[in-house]
Amino acid sequence: MSLQLPLPSLDRRRWLAAVGASLALAACAPMATAPSGADPLPSWNEGSNKQRIVEFVKAVSTEGGRDYVAPGDRIATFDNDGTLWLEYPMYTQVLFVFDRIRELAPQHPEWKTQDPFKSLLAGDMKGVMAGGTKGLLEMLGAAQSGSTPEEFEGIVQRWLQTAKDARFKRPYTELTYQPMQEVLRYLRANGFRTFIVSGGTVDFMRAFAQGVYGIPNEQVIGTRQKFAFEIRDGKPLVMMQPALEFNDDQDGKPIAIAQIIGKRPIAAFGNSDGDFQMLQWTTAGSGRRLGMIVHHDDGVREYAYDRDSPVGKLVEGLDRYQAMGWGLISMKNDWKEVFAPAK
Amino acid sequence: MSLQLPLPSLDRRRWLAAVGASLALAACAPMATAPSGADPLPSWNEGSNKQRIVEFVKAVSTEGGRDYVAPGDRIATFDNDGTLWLEYPMYTQVLFVFDRIRELAPQHPEWKTQDPFKSLLAGDMKGVMAGGTKGLLEMLGAAQSGSTPEEFEGIVQRWLQTAKDARFKRPYTELTYQPMQEVLRYLRANGFRTFIVSGGTVDFMRAFAQGVYGIPNEQVIGTRQKFAFEIRDGKPLVMMQPALEFNDDQDGKPIAIAQIIGKRPIAAFGNSDGDFQMLQWTTAGSGRRLGMIVHHDDGVREYAYDRDSPVGKLVEGLDRYQAMGWGLISMKNDWKEVFAPAK
Repeated sequence: MSLQLPLPSLDRRRWLAAVGASLALAACAPMATAPSGADPLPSWNEGSNKQRIVEFVKAVSTEGGRDYVAPGDRIATFDNDGTLWLEYPMYTQVLFVFDRIRELAPQHPEWKTQDPFKSLLAGDMKGVMAGGTKGLLEMLGAAQSGSTPEEFEGIVQRWLQTAKDARFKRPYTELTYQPMQEVLRYLRANGFRTFIVSGGTVDFMRAFAQGVYGIPNEQVIGTRQKFAFEIRDGKPLVMMQPALEFNDDQDGKPIAIAQIIGKRPIAAFGNSDGDFQMLQWTTAGSGRRLGMIVHHDDGVREYAYDRDSPVGKLVEGLDRYQAMGWGLISMKNDWKEVFAPAK
Repeated sequence: MSLQLPLPSLDRRRWLAAVGASLALAACAPMATAPSGADPLPSWNEGSNKQRIVEFVKAVSTEGGRDYVAPGDRIATFDNDGTLWLEYPMYTQVLFVFDRIRELAPQHPEWKTQDPFKSLLAGDMKGVMAGGTKGLLEMLGAAQSGSTPEEFEGIVQRWLQTAKDARFKRPYTELTYQPMQEVLRYLRANGFRTFIVSGGTVDFMRAFAQGVYGIPNEQVIGTRQKFAFEIRDGKPLVMMQPALEFNDDQDGKPIAIAQIIGKRPIAAFGNSDGDFQMLQWTTAGSGRRLGMIVHHDDGVREYAYDRDSPVGKLVEGLDRYQAMGWGLISMKNDWKEVFAPAK
């Protein structure tokens, strides 16, 4: 499904994003400490970005060193869409929402005459897009409410088992970036805890984060929907509501990290301007810090997009990464492989 | 300071609660697995409540057993005030707020003529209480804003180093319950992660949770204030705002657990009706579960209060604990010691 969103406000609303991967076991077990001398990042070409990551990890984990950081404070945060897996041409969570609306349609005859549902069900993507962010939010609310978070994770996992990317013909769970999977494992092998901090909604990401990235639910931070506590037939339930409580994008990322983790990360990875504030706050802390931006410049193996893209828009990051002391990762030049190997 | 709050709404607003303890090292290192045969709960008298805890821990941590739970899912949640430490006759966080207002008063001449500040500064507690929850919230906002969370933790730690409870003449950080400290360590020694889920505001509790309970910031859940992201003199800052974002009490407890941990606990400990829904949701899950209420029935060594107390009110829990299958811990009969030993 190829779908270019002409909505300037969409990038700001990246909570509509994130992508799924059911129970794929892609490299989920934490790597044992690599034998000394083994390359912890084999899918990375030698160069300044690989070196920057390796030197940072050595510096903060060498006891007695000037830059040593205690394990409890070795916190690294990662955006998900476009940083850990494919986000182009459309955030996978949006594709899930569309499919879920189609699936629920028989129970909602009123949708036949109500936009944005009507347009979606008629296959009129232009009509869907005309509804803008408001319309997408309305569909997300309809697709992601009325169940408990546990039930919803099952719904997402079921979808991820069959849905495939139109171009790569592979499940979304296989379209994670192998070099970033290596970074996650490398950091964890060196005493870091790795957190996702993404615009995708928390419960969508929890459906695959453990299986695909080895990241447990309590280390997944994202846009939060409202929940309500209810007693039904004597049973207490937490139910997902069709409304947002917190938008985990831009300013929201450092705020959510401060509220939920309560520690400033020492390393942060992103790919769009929605991640700018997270990298800015992370790298402004005292002591050694690491900020890295994944730049989508590989139109052959993946996609090339930045300044003019409605999805994963990157302007400020491109203009300021050098002044900020961040690394700009070139997918084309820094990565030997893009996607994790097929299973 | 003895202060009985005649506010029926205060108990509902237990986020005004929680108490402090600076860098006291009371038993903060995770206990190594106890040698087989050693009593993991030496401050507990033998009896059904001690037995209930020990049998539960054995059941869920015995591999191959019917009730076995994988370590990643061994989540236990604890209320703080009245469950892990003293809350009577007034939540320690409220006492901190009062002291902080007095400390800030010279910078706020307008407070001399504005209630509730005016009454507090004049030592007129009746006048303070007349302002009700609204007045207390206003003071909390004034006392806990305008700094970063890191700065605020330092402010709380400084206060905890000198403030003492009026009756026990000891720092609040020493007024934690020794039997509950043992439960925390016992659970962690058996693969559990222990979370605080309390009505106190998160950043107040983070000032002492690691030092006093061995619970790191990311495992402290509480009432959240609004934060804002700002750039000051080119530096990115997360700043505490004088407004609440989420009230972590009653229904809010299971909701916050579902949003932030993303897993239903298998054990929960509380002491007031503000904890009822957390215990209810925890123990309604499938498999073996543990719900325990600390009952303050020891007027000699601590205090005796429940149904009629404005602080830590316990009515529903007393009426329904047996039907719910929970244990009611008698401080008087179950505990050999109440407070952690003086250092």
